[in-house]
Amino acid sequence: MSTNEDRLVQSDDPEHPANLIPSLCAKFWTLGWVTGTGGGASIRDDDHVYIAPSGVQKELMKAEDLYVLSLPETLKRHNGEGPIRPSSRVYVRSPSRFKPSQCTPLFLSAFTRRGARCCIHTHSPHAVLVTLILEQAGESEFRINNIEQIKGFARGYPHAEVGNLGYHDTLRIPVIENTAHEEDLTEFLEEAMDKYPDAYAVLVRRHGVYVWGNSVEQAKGQCESLDYLFQIAVEMRKLAIPWESDIKPTVPKNSLKGQ
Amino acid sequence: MSTNEDRLVQSDDPEHPANLIPSLCAKFWTLGWVTGTGGGASIRDDDHVYIAPSGVQKELMKAEDLYVLSLPETLKRHNGEGPIRPSSRVYVRSPSRFKPSQCTPLFLSAFTRRGARCCIHTHSPHAVLVTLILEQAGESEFRINNIEQIKGFARGYPHAEVGNLGYHDTLRIPVIENTAHEEDLTEFLEEAMDKYPDAYAVLVRRHGVYVWGNSVEQAKGQCESLDYLFQIAVEMRKLAIPWESDIKPTVPKNSLKGQ
Amino acid sequence: MSTNEDRLVQSDDPEHPANLIPSLCAKFWTLGWVTGTGGGASIRDDDHVYIAPSGVQKELMKAEDLYVLSLPETLKRHNGEGPIRPSSRVYVRSPSRFKPSQCTPLFLSAFTRRGARCCIHTHSPHAVLVTLILEQAGESEFRINNIEQIKGFARGYPHAEVGNLGYHDTLRIPVIENTAHEEDLTEFLEEAMDKYPDAYAVLVRRHGVYVWGNSVEQAKGQCESLDYLFQIAVEMRKLAIPWESDIKPTVPKNSLKGQ
Amino acid sequence: MSTNEDRLVQSDDPEHPANLIPSLCAKFWTLGWVTGTGGGASIRDDDHVYIAPSGVQKELMKAEDLYVLSLPETLKRHNGEGPIRPSSRVYVRSPSRFKPSQCTPLFLSAFTRRGARCCIHTHSPHAVLVTLILEQAGESEFRINNIEQIKGFARGYPHAEVGNLGYHDTLRIPVIENTAHEEDLTEFLEEAMDKYPDAYAVLVRRHGVYVWGNSVEQAKGQCESLDYLFQIAVEMRKLAIPWESDIKPTVPKNSLKGQ
Repeated sequence: MSTNEDRLVQSDDPEHPANLIPSLCAKFWTLGWVTGTGGGASIRDDDHVYIAPSGVQKELMKAEDLYVLSLPETLKRHNGEGPIRPSSRVYVRSPSRFKPSQCTPLFLSAFTRRGARCCIHTHSPHAVLVTLILEQAGESEFRINNIEQIKGFARGYPHAEVGNLGYHDTLRIPVIENTAHEEDLTEFLEEAMDKYPDAYAVLVRRHGVYVWGNSVEQAKGQCESLDYLFQIAVEMRKLAIPWESDIKPTVPKNSLKGQ
Repeated sequence: MSTNEDRLVQSDDPEHPANLIPSLCAKFWTLGWVTGTGGGASIRDDDHVYIAPSGVQKELMKAEDLYVLSLPETLKRHNGEGPIRPSSRVYVRSPSRFKPSQCTPLFLSAFTRRGARCCIHTHSPHAVLVTLILEQAGESEFRINNIEQIKGFARGYPHAEVGNLGYHDTLRIPVIENTAHEEDLTEFLEEAMDKYPDAYAVLVRRHGVYVWGNSVEQAKGQCESLDYLFQIAVEMRKLAIPWESDIKPTVPKNSLKGQ
Repeated sequence: MSTNEDRLVQSDDPEHPANLIPSLCAKFWTLGWVTGTGGGASIRDDDHVYIAPSGVQKELMKAEDLYVLSLPETLKRHNGEGPIRPSSRVYVRSPSRFKPSQCTPLFLSAFTRRGARCCIHTHSPHAVLVTLILEQAGESEFRINNIEQIKGFARGYPHAEVGNLGYHDTLRIPVIENTAHEEDLTEFLEEAMDKYPDAYAVLVRRHGVYVWGNSVEQAKGQCESLDYLFQIAVEMRKLAIPWESDIKPTVPKNSLKGQ
Repeated sequence: MSTNEDRLVQSDDPEHPANLIPSLCAKFWTLGWVTGTGGGASIRDDDHVYIAPSGVQKELMKAEDLYVLSLPETLKRHNGEGPIRPSSRVYVRSPSRFKPSQCTPLFLSAFTRRGARCCIHTHSPHAVLVTLILEQAGESEFRINNIEQIKGFARGYPHAEVGNLGYHDTLRIPVIENTAHEEDLTEFLEEAMDKYPDAYAVLVRRHGVYVWGNSVEQAKGQCESLDYLFQIAVEMRKLAIPWESDIKPTVPKNSLKGQ
């Protein structure tokens, strides 16, 4: 007989967070984003936060491997400023085989500071290479414009209703320095969120990227679009093509827009 | 009970357009062509045009997600010159979850101006990189010759019966500049179609490619062949090998051709 | 009721040539070897030669799409020197939907001149790039040594019993120039076979590669090993590492070999 | 009726070594690690050592294709110093279709000298390219630091309890020279194990890599993490970014670590 804890992750619905996280992570594994148990994903479903555990083979993860955290109870205990301390976290489900993910406080930042519904963390080689290229140039911000896929990003978190970025807009993703302990990234992630109120993603130098969204679909779509842009950016670098350019808009005689 | 609208996309036949579009798009997703909900595909089946909606995860798309447009009724309303305006489009099926694809007028151009049966739009990184390499050289035409895969293209749309391009022929694909609004590409796509009456594809700078065909198989085959050529072209560039070359035909003493 | 022709390709055995060719080609499609209906494969089973047709989507091919040719009857009609002319070929099964593959005479050369059981033709981008790199150097032979995967090749066709190449051996693959008509490659392929009696593969400039073997497993294994070497060779070129090197053998104090 | 030998590889449990080796190898094939029958894997289950045979297509391997060796009986016969000679090996299961893997003595070294439970051997192109880049620099050690994925490695074999490497630690993987006969690598592998008591992996120049672990999961995870690092290292080389760097730790005002 299943316990109450187990029932939290038992559902026939493929859209249930406990089924979605494993299916997403299996897909991400084939893309090279969560190799060697790296990376992870988390979904918030009302008061519950579902989180992939630490050290699990992401393409083999099962619903029963997931942690579930109570967000209201955790916030009640936290009752303060700064990142949510491990001691404040209230788990309503803790699989005995695993340990909680070191990404947990970073996922919680996306949920509490941005009202996100889903947060994805990848170790994508393209993301890491972009942070290395930027490091050589002494930069802490990835900027790219005039690539169609930029439209895959919402314009800004606080005003999601204003729609997505346009082709000529510059996508800006902050880069934070990596820390020895992953959870210690939280403070810097939150600083970057404050400094870039529009951003849906933060790159971590020599580590990977955190991407979130107002829905699982948006988080996944933005994560895919971003990885696509990182991939193209690395190739552009090899071909000595700059990431930013000044392109004059092309306008037809009779625009169909809005007709 | 299914409505009439639903019946348009319900079939057990895997070759039915409503089943083909999702299976094609799932395949294209694995190739990196339609990542982050980018790209799309459309099939014309007599009077009906089936179109993947905007913003759908292409590898998860279902038949029920598709729009279906009546081509004769749309043309009746259009009743004029230039791209078909959104207000002229007559949908016989509109899934409530989604919005119509911005690619719709471009797909319609392929169907009405070229009599195509299928049109595919990808954001393939290889295609985008080729347009960037050409941009650096100030060019608006991709040209490649003396690569076997060129034979994967029909010789020219108006005279499909003349067969495919030969090994020594030069494949020419026009590049149009990207516009802020995807539907505004239509005017330029049609101009390129007029200027290149033979072309089965148009590259869009910093965006991707549109490829069509007289059948789903031809459109898909040409799209695959083109992406293969773009991939090789990018690698050739890295290896400083020119895309065009002047190669003297090699002829055997006794040709088997036509025997 | 199935006809005699159909029975040739109907079997529940996954190792039957009519089932193996589609499963191999579906796998090759995922590797990018037979994209856009390019490439192909053929298996000889005693007197019958099974051949993928022209213009088929290789990942979707079915047993019923295959041609079957009678080798003894074809040779009886041929009754002469040089490549087997199309008019000499005797098909015992011809699917009406398709046309015979242009690769047919090349596959037959592998079967008749080398006693091969299986011949694979790919348009692998790695193979094409290697021929382009060699062309720039004015060379018509691919040579590589001191890479472990070279051991994946049999030492020489006439003396298969002597085993595979060693680590320090140099693998030599001739490159023939491409012809406008694929079947016209046959004469040059046979010349290369004569000149390189040991070779199990021939590269075709700007086109791809033909690889054969005494069994399906050997042909597939050698094709995979060769593509791996081509892939590494292209990367070595980008890193300015030569394909051939003079390396002194490393020998342990007490060899385990043969003990 | 199955023989005793067959029963050793018959189990419904997907975690049984006889099922795990084929499923792992099929996965590795899709990653390009065991192409062309190259590479292999072995699992120790108490007294039994399960080994993929020589010359098998790794993605098609079945449980029934596996060799099973008795470790205690083999060690009894060995009764001496240095690598375990082929004549000392006691097989409790020998499939007649195949020959024992040349990797056998190397796998046994990992099991006897390191107490490993699983050892994986790949011909990964990334691994080979890294050994070639190091060769050009006259080096026999791969060193990389300040990349998050380094945390995917245990700190050292003798003291597994001390946990994994940290972000700022330098991962060091020895490179041994390749030998004409794979089994002759054993002496050099064991030398490298002695010289690098912490290492969980040894690179073989122009050949590939051996990776092991205290469990199947650890061996697989470390193999994936290592290949990821090799892949990034090759790209870093192309972008002229050094593999080692001197980075000052970033520390937050209030570390969450250990709270």
